[in-house]
Amino acid sequence: MPQIARVIQLAARPVGTPKPSDFRIAESLLADPGPGEVLLRMEWLSLDPYMRGRMSEARSYAAPTALGDPPPCEAVARVLVSNDPGLAPGDQVLVYDAWRDHAVAKAADCRKLDPAAAPVQAWLGILGMPGRTAYTGLKHIGQPKPGETLVVGAATGAVGSVVGQIARLQGLRVVGVAGGAEKCRYAVEALGFDACLDRHQPNLGSRLAEACPKGIDIYFELTGGDVLTAVLPLLNPFARMPVCGTIAGFASTTPPPGPDRLPDLMRLVLTRRLTLRGFIVDDFNADTTEFEAAMARWLAEGAIRNREDVSHGLDSMVAAFIGMLEGRNFGKTLVRLD
Amino acid sequence: MPQIARVIQLAARPVGTPKPSDFRIAESLLADPGPGEVLLRMEWLSLDPYMRGRMSEARSYAAPTALGDPPPCEAVARVLVSNDPGLAPGDQVLVYDAWRDHAVAKAADCRKLDPAAAPVQAWLGILGMPGRTAYTGLKHIGQPKPGETLVVGAATGAVGSVVGQIARLQGLRVVGVAGGAEKCRYAVEALGFDACLDRHQPNLGSRLAEACPKGIDIYFELTGGDVLTAVLPLLNPFARMPVCGTIAGFASTTPPPGPDRLPDLMRLVLTRRLTLRGFIVDDFNADTTEFEAAMARWLAEGAIRNREDVSHGLDSMVAAFIGMLEGRNFGKTLVRLD
Repeated sequence: MPQIARVIQLAARPVGTPKPSDFRIAESLLADPGPGEVLLRMEWLSLDPYMRGRMSEARSYAAPTALGDPPPCEAVARVLVSNDPGLAPGDQVLVYDAWRDHAVAKAADCRKLDPAAAPVQAWLGILGMPGRTAYTGLKHIGQPKPGETLVVGAATGAVGSVVGQIARLQGLRVVGVAGGAEKCRYAVEALGFDACLDRHQPNLGSRLAEACPKGIDIYFELTGGDVLTAVLPLLNPFARMPVCGTIAGFASTTPPPGPDRLPDLMRLVLTRRLTLRGFIVDDFNADTTEFEAAMARWLAEGAIRNREDVSHGLDSMVAAFIGMLEGRNFGKTLVRLD
Repeated sequence: MPQIARVIQLAARPVGTPKPSDFRIAESLLADPGPGEVLLRMEWLSLDPYMRGRMSEARSYAAPTALGDPPPCEAVARVLVSNDPGLAPGDQVLVYDAWRDHAVAKAADCRKLDPAAAPVQAWLGILGMPGRTAYTGLKHIGQPKPGETLVVGAATGAVGSVVGQIARLQGLRVVGVAGGAEKCRYAVEALGFDACLDRHQPNLGSRLAEACPKGIDIYFELTGGDVLTAVLPLLNPFARMPVCGTIAGFASTTPPPGPDRLPDLMRLVLTRRLTLRGFIVDDFNADTTEFEAAMARWLAEGAIRNREDVSHGLDSMVAAFIGMLEGRNFGKTLVRLD
C-alpha cells in the first residue's frame, strides 16, 4: 500500500532571512520500496545553518535545492518496511534525506543506530555532523595548543558549543560570543567557557580585547559579521581560522557599504601570517571513527555537555529553521515527529 | 683609521608611494671593527618590496625602520678589515645590513660567498631571499600538483618569475600578470609561462578567465589590487593562496570605497574551501639547503632564467626603490656600488 508523505517544499528562493512564505507543505505519494530499499518513518529531523546556503543559487560546494523540492536534512528514522536483509522493521537508522515525514531510501544509505549507546538524536548533533565538524575543523585547521586562546561565536549552538568544550579540555583559554545573557551564562557555567560575551551589548570589540589579554590564536568562524570584525584586530601571529559558516552573511541582501575591508584583511593575513581555511565536514571523513570514540568517551565521562532545542511536528519546522538563523535556538536545533 | 660611510636615512614616513624627500643622504663615522668584527665595503645592495612595509608604523612581523635610520637591506660586501679568523680581506660576503656603502658587522653575521659558484649578486636574488621565498611558499602553501593552474602577478619580478618557472617545471599551467607588453612577452618567451597578461590593458578579469579555462588552483599573492580582484571569482575548490606581498596596498592612502568585499571573501573561503596563508621566508628557513641545491641545479641546467635590473651608485637607490614599487623595474632590483 503506497505511503503518503507530508513534505515541506522550497516555494521561493529566500532573500536574506527566509520567510514562512518561502516554503509550503504538500503531500506526495511514495513509490513502494524496491529491492534493497526501505520505507522509513522519520522520528527526528535535523536543522542546520548550511541548509540556508543550499536555498540560494550561488555557486557552492553542493548544488542548490531546486524550487519545489524539499530542502535536505539528516534524520533519524524508524524502518517500517524493509526489502533488505540488513535492516528489519523497527530498526532506527540515520539517513540523509529531506524535510518530510516519510521516505523511501536505499538500505545501503541508512546507518543502523544502537539506541542503547546514546539517545538516537545525538547522531544528528553532538555525535553526528555538527560534532564532527567541530572536532575535525578544530583538529586539522585550528591545531590547538595548550595555553592558546580560542574564540568562537554561536557559542551555545551545535558546533560552537562543541568547539569550545573540546578546546577547554585541551587546555586552551576559551572565549565565546552568544546572543543574550542567558546563553552567555550557560556557556560559562555549564560548558566551562572562560568567558562569553553577549553580542547584543555594545562595544563587542573592547570587551573581546579584555577577555583575550594574550590575543587570539584560533578563531573558529561560524558567524561572520560583528564577531569577525571584533576578532580581526586581536589575532596573534600565526593565528588559524577554520572557516565553517557565515550565518550573518545569509541575512545580507545588498552589498555592505564601504570602506572595502578586503585589502586590510589581506594585509593582516600577510603581516600576522594568518591561515584562513574553509572546510566542510566531508573533507575529514577519515576521522569519523576517531571522533565518535572520543566524543562517546567525553559524553560518558560528563566532560562534554549536550543541549538540544526541540520543536514538535513537521508544521513547526519552518519557524524553527528561521528561528535558528536568527539565533533564537538554544542548543542543537531538532524537530521531533511524534 | 675610522671609515666614513655614506648612508641613506629615512627622513619621513612615506604616505602611499614614497617620495624622494622621504629620504636623505648623510655621512656617518663608523667605529673601528672590534674583535670578531669586520669592516665591509658594500658592492651590491638589494631592493625588495618588504622594505616599504618597514617604513610604516603599522604592526607587522618586524619593527619599523626608525626615522633617521637607514632602511634595512641584504648586501654583498667585500671585507676590507677583518678581526676574525674566519674572514680575510678581499673575501666577499652576504650580510643583512642597511642602505649604506660601508659597514662594520660581526663576522658571525656574514656568510662567505664562493664567487666561482655563481655571480655573487645572485645570492641577493634568485639564490637568495627572493628565490627562497618563491620556492618555500610554493612548496609549503601552494602545494603544486601537475596539471593544476597557477597565477602570479609581478610575473617578471624577483619572486614572481621564480614562482612561475618552478611551477612550470613541475607541470603546472602558469599564467602571469605583469605591467606592459614587453614584460609579458618576456614571461612567455624567456621564462616559459603559458600566458602573461598586461595589467595596464582593460578587462583583466575576462582575459584571465580565458587564460585559465580550468580555473585557478594556486594564486601566489604578491600584488593585491586588480590582480587579486580578477583572480577571486576563478579560484577552484581547494585552491591555495600563499600571501607574500601586497604591493598595491602600499600605494593606497585612504580606505578604499565600498562595497565592503570582506564578507564575500569569507563566503568564498567557505564555499570553495580555500586556504589563504601569509608567510615570510624565515618561516621556512629549514629548507634553505634544499632550496639552494635545487636552484643551483636549475640554473646550471638552464631550466630557470634570471634577470636583474641594476642601477649604479648609492645616489640612484631611492629612485630605483620608488621605481620598483611602481613596477618600473624589470627583473630583480639591485644597486651596484662601484
